[in-house]
Amino acid sequence: MSILTVGTVAFDDIETPFGRAEMVIGGAGTYIAWAASYLHDSVNLVSIVGGDFPKEELAMMNDRGIDTTGIEIVEDKNSFFWAGRYHDNMNSRDTLKTELNVLADFDPVLPDSYQDDDILMLGNLTPEIQIKVMDQLVKKPKITVLDTMNFWMDIAMDSLKEAISRVDILTINDEEARQLSGEYSLVNAAKVIHELGPKYLIVKKGEHGALLFHEGKMFAAPALPLALVKDPTGAGDSFAGGLCGYLASCDTIGYEEVKTGIIYGSVMASFCVEEFSLGRIKQLKEEDIKQRLQAFKDMTSFSI
Amino acid sequence: MSILTVGTVAFDDIETPFGRAEMVIGGAGTYIAWAASYLHDSVNLVSIVGGDFPKEELAMMNDRGIDTTGIEIVEDKNSFFWAGRYHDNMNSRDTLKTELNVLADFDPVLPDSYQDDDILMLGNLTPEIQIKVMDQLVKKPKITVLDTMNFWMDIAMDSLKEAISRVDILTINDEEARQLSGEYSLVNAAKVIHELGPKYLIVKKGEHGALLFHEGKMFAAPALPLALVKDPTGAGDSFAGGLCGYLASCDTIGYEEVKTGIIYGSVMASFCVEEFSLGRIKQLKEEDIKQRLQAFKDMTSFSI
Repeated sequence: MSILTVGTVAFDDIETPFGRAEMVIGGAGTYIAWAASYLHDSVNLVSIVGGDFPKEELAMMNDRGIDTTGIEIVEDKNSFFWAGRYHDNMNSRDTLKTELNVLADFDPVLPDSYQDDDILMLGNLTPEIQIKVMDQLVKKPKITVLDTMNFWMDIAMDSLKEAISRVDILTINDEEARQLSGEYSLVNAAKVIHELGPKYLIVKKGEHGALLFHEGKMFAAPALPLALVKDPTGAGDSFAGGLCGYLASCDTIGYEEVKTGIIYGSVMASFCVEEFSLGRIKQLKEEDIKQRLQAFKDMTSFSI
Repeated sequence: MSILTVGTVAFDDIETPFGRAEMVIGGAGTYIAWAASYLHDSVNLVSIVGGDFPKEELAMMNDRGIDTTGIEIVEDKNSFFWAGRYHDNMNSRDTLKTELNVLADFDPVLPDSYQDDDILMLGNLTPEIQIKVMDQLVKKPKITVLDTMNFWMDIAMDSLKEAISRVDILTINDEEARQLSGEYSLVNAAKVIHELGPKYLIVKKGEHGALLFHEGKMFAAPALPLALVKDPTGAGDSFAGGLCGYLASCDTIGYEEVKTGIIYGSVMASFCVEEFSLGRIKQLKEEDIKQRLQAFKDMTSFSI
């Protein structure tokens, strides 16, 4: 199966208790595509960048098998830019600056060569754009995954709900699941969210792992406790990339495959946070991924 | 193996977003003993109560195989009393009232019949009392477990560290692990805490489950997501009771047994929070426990 993903490709300024990184490569689309590329060799990316975006970054993506035909380059404008500062506990952050730049006019046009993709991963973006991408697909993908955040619930709940109604898997964090459903208990939140459309709800809990809800069943994946978390930026996107990358390698997709996909996503997120930007993700070897998968297996195995 | 536990046996007033309960039975020792009693038939409890404590509550404990010879009854005084109010998210609470009453003079004296116990569970109490119990044992138990809280770290860190230096398993929450170690990362916190003495560190994370650290290895147990958490009081004590109850049923105790013990502890904690006070814990059937163990197994199983 092949993966079509849409998401930002951008620059970040990041400040954490462990250092600073200025004008580094970021963006949901970037993290998703890089993470997925280790698990599957057909990843098609739709995005928009300015003339300031390094061509060699696109070339590096191509080297990893990521098709960037769908990235529009607007030479006389700048790429999307986000600056943020993480608090001491790394679980919360302040946005210091957001410059939409090219993103303000983003009107995604899917290349014809992207029409046959089986897995659609809608990265965190305006729900309107997520809908536009779904509308352009001639045939419905086998699985559509949507990632979003509280910001869109605050300012665009109606179109977000429309987007959500059309997807199979929704990935949000615990507070967002509560906001979207109006239910505090995640068990009850999942019931409300299933009614909105998605058969699978994945609740991302950062350092506490992730929960999957599907047809009354639950699956809990831990996060890997790490000695040093340098930069949480992109962890959720890397998680989505790992999930979709694994699903693309499956012949059929059901509850068991989504569970395993969550472990692959957790593995990719655990690498992501070890360095600023894509520092760790860009250096992965097959053996690293294999070892960390085993670490998750060991960390969750018990006999009763 | 038999279990010796020390902890409060007391009254609670509890207020949660789901209701109120006044002068209900509580106390760490009570929850530990009840939870352990479902997994093992030899539980010896050391505590102190006032003349106001219902004799039928002690009789109910005896019916479950809990030996209460070690509970001192001070007829002309009142039992320890705690009143607390939980916040909307149930993860934090305010203490409204603490009346030490009999607990102010608690000087535990172990009955001779408690001398041969293999598992010592020191419930959350003044570290001085935890030390006094250890001092009275003629032979060292096979496994000593200590539960404590930030309150003792704030006012009695030196004696707490002395108590901790003598135990095998320490159970605390994530913020307490950080406070005790001075390390934010739980991986680093575990290294510091192992140096203090305990070979096993169990970090309790409430709704996010528990982590076990032992000789560089890690194990993650989820908490069971529940539709309704009525009253979190005693969840940590029920966890400790489930852990020790399981360990008492093992011939030898090592990493694998502690891992499984954590699942039993998580099962008992999940029952505890479903009703106020011991409402649910007192009604358990063997089949309930079996089914919930299976729920934990199902919730954590995946293939890679």
